[in-house]
Amino acid sequence: MFQNFTSPSSPDQGPPRLALLRTWMQKQGINGFIVPRADRHQGEYVAACDERLSWLTGFTGSAGFACVLEDLAGIFIDGRYRLQVFDQVADAFTPVHWPETQLQDWLITNAHPSAVIGFDPWLHTVTQIEGLRIVLAAADIALIACPNGVDAIWQDQPTPPSTTAWSHPESLSGESSANKASRLGTSIATLDADAAVITLPDSLCWLLNIRGGDVPRTPIVQCFGVLFASGAITLFGDPKKLLVLSFNPNVTVQNWETFETYLQNIKGKILIDPTSLPQAALEALDLGTAKTLRARDPCALPKACKNQIELNGSRAAHLRDGVAMVNFLAWFDAADQSSLSEIDIVTHLEEFRTATNLLHDISFDTISGSGPHGAVVHYRVTEDTNRKLDTDSLLLVDSGGQYRDGTTDITRTLPLGNPTLEMRQAFTQVLQGMIAISQVRFPMGLTGRDLDSLARVPLWAAGKDYDHGTGHGVGSFLSVHEGPQRLSRATDVALEVGMILSNEPGYYRAGAYGVRIENLIVIKLAPQLPSGDARAMFEFETITLAPIDLRLIDAGMLSQQEKNWLNSYHKTVYTKLLPLLNVATAQWLAQATARI
Amino acid sequence: MFQNFTSPSSPDQGPPRLALLRTWMQKQGINGFIVPRADRHQGEYVAACDERLSWLTGFTGSAGFACVLEDLAGIFIDGRYRLQVFDQVADAFTPVHWPETQLQDWLITNAHPSAVIGFDPWLHTVTQIEGLRIVLAAADIALIACPNGVDAIWQDQPTPPSTTAWSHPESLSGESSANKASRLGTSIATLDADAAVITLPDSLCWLLNIRGGDVPRTPIVQCFGVLFASGAITLFGDPKKLLVLSFNPNVTVQNWETFETYLQNIKGKILIDPTSLPQAALEALDLGTAKTLRARDPCALPKACKNQIELNGSRAAHLRDGVAMVNFLAWFDAADQSSLSEIDIVTHLEEFRTATNLLHDISFDTISGSGPHGAVVHYRVTEDTNRKLDTDSLLLVDSGGQYRDGTTDITRTLPLGNPTLEMRQAFTQVLQGMIAISQVRFPMGLTGRDLDSLARVPLWAAGKDYDHGTGHGVGSFLSVHEGPQRLSRATDVALEVGMILSNEPGYYRAGAYGVRIENLIVIKLAPQLPSGDARAMFEFETITLAPIDLRLIDAGMLSQQEKNWLNSYHKTVYTKLLPLLNVATAQWLAQATARI
Repeated sequence: MFQNFTSPSSPDQGPPRLALLRTWMQKQGINGFIVPRADRHQGEYVAACDERLSWLTGFTGSAGFACVLEDLAGIFIDGRYRLQVFDQVADAFTPVHWPETQLQDWLITNAHPSAVIGFDPWLHTVTQIEGLRIVLAAADIALIACPNGVDAIWQDQPTPPSTTAWSHPESLSGESSANKASRLGTSIATLDADAAVITLPDSLCWLLNIRGGDVPRTPIVQCFGVLFASGAITLFGDPKKLLVLSFNPNVTVQNWETFETYLQNIKGKILIDPTSLPQAALEALDLGTAKTLRARDPCALPKACKNQIELNGSRAAHLRDGVAMVNFLAWFDAADQSSLSEIDIVTHLEEFRTATNLLHDISFDTISGSGPHGAVVHYRVTEDTNRKLDTDSLLLVDSGGQYRDGTTDITRTLPLGNPTLEMRQAFTQVLQGMIAISQVRFPMGLTGRDLDSLARVPLWAAGKDYDHGTGHGVGSFLSVHEGPQRLSRATDVALEVGMILSNEPGYYRAGAYGVRIENLIVIKLAPQLPSGDARAMFEFETITLAPIDLRLIDAGMLSQQEKNWLNSYHKTVYTKLLPLLNVATAQWLAQATARI
Repeated sequence: MFQNFTSPSSPDQGPPRLALLRTWMQKQGINGFIVPRADRHQGEYVAACDERLSWLTGFTGSAGFACVLEDLAGIFIDGRYRLQVFDQVADAFTPVHWPETQLQDWLITNAHPSAVIGFDPWLHTVTQIEGLRIVLAAADIALIACPNGVDAIWQDQPTPPSTTAWSHPESLSGESSANKASRLGTSIATLDADAAVITLPDSLCWLLNIRGGDVPRTPIVQCFGVLFASGAITLFGDPKKLLVLSFNPNVTVQNWETFETYLQNIKGKILIDPTSLPQAALEALDLGTAKTLRARDPCALPKACKNQIELNGSRAAHLRDGVAMVNFLAWFDAADQSSLSEIDIVTHLEEFRTATNLLHDISFDTISGSGPHGAVVHYRVTEDTNRKLDTDSLLLVDSGGQYRDGTTDITRTLPLGNPTLEMRQAFTQVLQGMIAISQVRFPMGLTGRDLDSLARVPLWAAGKDYDHGTGHGVGSFLSVHEGPQRLSRATDVALEVGMILSNEPGYYRAGAYGVRIENLIVIKLAPQLPSGDARAMFEFETITLAPIDLRLIDAGMLSQQEKNWLNSYHKTVYTKLLPLLNVATAQWLAQATARI
């Protein structure tokens, strides 16, 4: 079992740890210290040794940070965690609504004049620090790099992860590491640069065709790297963990402690991505003679555009995952639901995925939200929050698997007893938005921002909306949340062939229920139409294979075109999964995918 | 008759004028000179004395510019004018596809190393020059301000316009000039600035509640202004023309020649809008002690958000304009179309508008494009291009009126004989997009970019699209194209209550036909819905009143919801216009607005 249901948070440990940190601050001569959730690699998942925010405050959300002053400690959390934070965090910490209140504004209001605020320069990006520093300097607040205060007081801080990295073979990656390094080296040379510093582990894992087990859920190995225009790569990490690379003639591995000195001594024009580069790395470069050139991590876009082998792998993973999902859905339908809890849903679903015999990990902790918990967008069930399933309500299940050939991410919302008409209408509106994205055809050159609204129009018409993007990029046996592409108002990245995205509109009525329907989609070139002009256009291929609950659809609200999409999708689901199901489940699926 | 059909262009005059300009360049010691279409105020319409681009090159389009080198003269034109330019311009000028090819790239390719390129600093904005200068400097090409070369060689250059400005009373503007100046002064103070330099005539006309006749189609008076935080305004223009302001105690009028010296001597922190401020004005400010603060023209957003009196005025103007349109449409339907030309359409339509007795001007030259001319997005018919109406095709008519209570802009596409099924399908797809915008409800905070795609989805599905924005802002008895709001991918301005926008998707098959349907819409707060959450949401009110041709609709392609919108719109058109029509036209309208 990958997932666990412990509540790691002990609010009562917050205040004594906070006191220790403040004593440390005093010794350092600083008036404040920022504790981010991020590690040096800005990953969504962090190793146990990097769980500083949770250790200090008790807060276990996947985004947020704390800022500790001498007499006030703010815990900055976004809309998803407004409720959770009160259960996890002691009164000694004051919740701050973020990003509505920005750190700089909070500091200007709450720090005393001429305050000195410390931060660990390895845990913050260049962009973060530069933005903060300019505003704070104008208010006479200094921001200074210093050692990490949490590490200084955390007596039993775990040791860094030590799992050995392994090869992700060309039969799965579709392109040799040498080839990737060569074409990326060329792109670096095109920018007139000599090398690029790469600090995102999933970029390096993609580039090197390796995977690892440093953090849960995302199969990465943590390291830093410098890719030269020649295609040569110098890697900084634990050489014992990176033994697999001893067969790669392009790669030199050095212990990570040498990284800072290496950057101080590197020559030429060096490409950096300020949105991921640790501030400490920029400071090291600035000590030497290198010139820096700011651009996007050169791996980001090539990694996002999957090749045919990766796409075929992803299709195979989704077929396998679809079998697990359908076995789960059929089991759930036949079960005595009144006896089940949210945790039962998670454990059974994971068992069905495990039964594929190919599950490497789940791709994130399954969200199993019954009734009001469905409205908590990133709800993670624990022993403390677990509850029996509601009746006459909805169950939201958002889950995914890491398979060596692909990463999956699927949300289905299921009826519990007899959901209300309001719930069914909301479900149908969400479905209409999801169908609008599924079947849109659009010209080359657009960004996800240009499509995001299409998923919202049916909800808007009913006075509703959802406060998250419509979709995120998905990796190939890598991060389930992968940039740079998104379906969201917060993106300016052009959509390109081969990108995998989630398509997941939702609706949340706080304290009552949540709806989300999520499929993964792949961008492909659309065939020319006889009615059309010779414009290059894209369309989406849906790769997720699992039925959408017909009992929650108010069919009268759907247009014929929407019904056609749903019937066609369900026909595909049935046809593809049928050979892989036992007879009883196949019968169940036939009903679940009946034409409407 | 406001519109004329002359072809002012004489391509044969281009080469001798070009030769004169090159001789002048040689005397100035420069290797190139840029001739923009814009005047000092960056307006869409320019006075006869400012028609430098057309005088030099023959090109009469409403956007574009020329760059003259010693041995090459580029005429930069966008997609709308690719065909027109060949008829208007001599071979001595080389058409350049703009914005695909940017001036800086063209200069780097075509100017010799160390070239010095001159420009008139009054005719270019700060943003234009700064962007250009950085790129050119890196390529060792210098950009220097110099006198205007066209003015130097243009012997019979007309004198500047001399029409007297008049008051636009509070009964039409809805707010006193003193009030506007006071609240804008406060907004300037909020930005910690002392004054703002305003160089857009429509901003100043709005602020001062005046109108004028300096250019065709847009009732503005050209002047520059400085608005102080106190609400006091110093204006620079022709005092004879600005006599109307002698009653305004807030305003001091100085001759425009004093503007440059005034800027050199002004003190404090001065707000400038680099996207409209002439480079010469910045250079004057930089000579003095003033600090500049860059921000949007402080009039832009307040002017865009019309008050209730302006909106009521606009509704009245649209009712009146709707009567003219319906009288025109009914006449056209009964006419012997085979005997009519494109010019006949323009003259008759203008006559129907003139018959309202309240037409101040047309708001732009009517676009009357039959068959293939309909595919020329900004087609202006002249004696040279005029043709009899096609048969079995489409006629695109885009027109508008300037009334003292409001500016109108409407496009209708009409059948000529029996249009093909392909034409009717394209018309229906365009209509579907137009309806999608008309009936969308959307949350506060979005920009026009977030809605633009909604108008395109039905066309995209058929492999089609259009290469212009979906809509532009519209002024209140001011510019028919008014910022800052747009329905377009090229905007980041949040939509706000009271903004007027056009809603005009289209489809153009080059060499064959064009379709465009355009209504004006107003943003208003949407009522809360029982099904919805307590989110502030907006909706559009359609204020244009004229039938959409039912004979061009393939009703089978429309959803019931789309039919409902059309029927409801047509019912409104019929009900509102009926009391203002004669019996025969009312009967025609009843048919034209029949339920489908």
